[in-house]
Amino acid sequence: MEKEVTIYDIAKILQLSPATVSRALNDHPAINSKTKLSIVTKAAELGYRSNTFASNLRRKSTSTLGVIVPRLDSSFMSAVLAGMEAVANQAGYNLLISQSLESQGKEKTNVKTMYNSRVDGLLVSVAYDTEGFEHFENFVKKNIPVLFFDRIFDHPACASIVIDNVQAGFEITSHLIEQGCRRIMHVTGNLKRNVYSGRYQGYQNALAKYGIPLDESLIMVTDLSQEAGEAAIEKLAEMDNKPDGIFIANDICAVSCVQALKKRGFKIPVDIAVAGFNNDPVSKVIEPNLTTIFYPGREMGEVAVRTMINHLKGVQKIDTTNTVILKSELIVRESTVK
Amino acid sequence: MEKEVTIYDIAKILQLSPATVSRALNDHPAINSKTKLSIVTKAAELGYRSNTFASNLRRKSTSTLGVIVPRLDSSFMSAVLAGMEAVANQAGYNLLISQSLESQGKEKTNVKTMYNSRVDGLLVSVAYDTEGFEHFENFVKKNIPVLFFDRIFDHPACASIVIDNVQAGFEITSHLIEQGCRRIMHVTGNLKRNVYSGRYQGYQNALAKYGIPLDESLIMVTDLSQEAGEAAIEKLAEMDNKPDGIFIANDICAVSCVQALKKRGFKIPVDIAVAGFNNDPVSKVIEPNLTTIFYPGREMGEVAVRTMINHLKGVQKIDTTNTVILKSELIVRESTVK
Repeated sequence: MEKEVTIYDIAKILQLSPATVSRALNDHPAINSKTKLSIVTKAAELGYRSNTFASNLRRKSTSTLGVIVPRLDSSFMSAVLAGMEAVANQAGYNLLISQSLESQGKEKTNVKTMYNSRVDGLLVSVAYDTEGFEHFENFVKKNIPVLFFDRIFDHPACASIVIDNVQAGFEITSHLIEQGCRRIMHVTGNLKRNVYSGRYQGYQNALAKYGIPLDESLIMVTDLSQEAGEAAIEKLAEMDNKPDGIFIANDICAVSCVQALKKRGFKIPVDIAVAGFNNDPVSKVIEPNLTTIFYPGREMGEVAVRTMINHLKGVQKIDTTNTVILKSELIVRESTVK
Repeated sequence: MEKEVTIYDIAKILQLSPATVSRALNDHPAINSKTKLSIVTKAAELGYRSNTFASNLRRKSTSTLGVIVPRLDSSFMSAVLAGMEAVANQAGYNLLISQSLESQGKEKTNVKTMYNSRVDGLLVSVAYDTEGFEHFENFVKKNIPVLFFDRIFDHPACASIVIDNVQAGFEITSHLIEQGCRRIMHVTGNLKRNVYSGRYQGYQNALAKYGIPLDESLIMVTDLSQEAGEAAIEKLAEMDNKPDGIFIANDICAVSCVQALKKRGFKIPVDIAVAGFNNDPVSKVIEPNLTTIFYPGREMGEVAVRTMINHLKGVQKIDTTNTVILKSELIVRESTVK
């Protein structure tokens, strides 16, 4: 086992007193900045660790956290941001907020801006089409913590806050099957995003459990917009062997499906049961009310910022946590109860 | 007419060359900061103006704008923020965002935080119960621009972005009267806020135009929440002389009224016509679809940030603008067409 580097090791190498090293690592004003820099640099080089090491390295803390979301104008994201702001504000942190507009290009620019703004930490939900992790490497190299929420990247240096999308997809599909559905259409988003691939995996697991073969002609990958809902129902209406159930990976698109189905004279849930995802406010207003998954947006925002601040304060490092899975919940309403 | 102060006047008074004065006002690195400060101070004292004067004064520009909203988790505010972020990002500005949670106390704390964060400008929609302007005085004193949007304060040094709430309230009430309504209930928010007092004034103007006397027992001041909608309908159900129309000052509360009315067996719009305000997504999902006022949230955010940046870049000072009124629009749907 490799021996842990101590302040005595650093002091010896630099021919300084251990007290000076300790003070420098705690950013004590009595140590001049040149000495401080040489100590901090050597400590980093040797892999020195202490509970407050990360925060000491950031000698220019801005008490600002960067947040990058796909879109600001979504009900889910506004709940997340409300939760984030409440916790950040309480702890004396500010939030610098930007949106990628679902584009990898804009996300990269946003990440660079956050870097130049010297945020103490970065909280990200990645864009629809983001492919790689490279644009976050600068943060990792500088020990600036990056935390993903909802739409995540799995990276050893980063933590993630999610719900169990596989389990949620499994529960809602199982519910449809238990209501008698046998041909269940699934309208989803980009399967490179964990949230959509997870829900799709859950859908497949439920079919497998009940011995229903997967029919790929019933899977539609869309951008989950209102328009996508209308297009999905247009396609459904032309099918010879029509589905008796439909699971849509968000409520905005699901509500649009319900409206399009009703316009074409389908009776919900008798002709076709409809289930969404998110528990968006519209799910309680549409008639019939929509079966969906409760998605704890506010809690996700709160936990994300709390995890980040605990790391920055040296209470608990984010790379020891890896993933926090929040509880989601199936909410059964009239749109699926046959 | 008073003569405009020039760099020659400043140079003469300070016994410096005009070139030095010019360079100092343009924040040229060759001029030492003490000289720069004395020149900038004298220029300010004499009322010197140039296109870039405002931006020169702010020698420590952070390229960050502060935004304080009542709540982050509202559909209207998330549209505003999306518009703000798009314009700010395009122009190289960051947004520091916080919420007052409708409390004057938290708003004051937020304003202080924004001040200490050295934002280049502040964009505010005031809380439900904010009483005075004092907490913004520090900004005004330091020449840091403050712009109000939606819920505003009238202050000579600040600009405001609003819709014409009086006109919108007038139009929607007139529409109810034209549909045959004669006893129109009005559910509104804190009348100290321009948005609610304006809509109420518009309601009164419409009644006056059609010769309908104002009945104050039909006016309910609430927090416009979902619960407030249920409470309003409970009260309505107990009235002997029931209203035949109801105008609610936001859609969230209006949708809750529709649901409560339907539960009690009222037919909409035959028994009672219902109109909301905001064109919130739920207004298009509730049955019957809700008559409302289109409220250009995204545009309001865009115009607010564009106005602020124009000021910061010296293109156009905000105190010459005072108020920008955006177009709103009556949207007639089934909930009012008898």
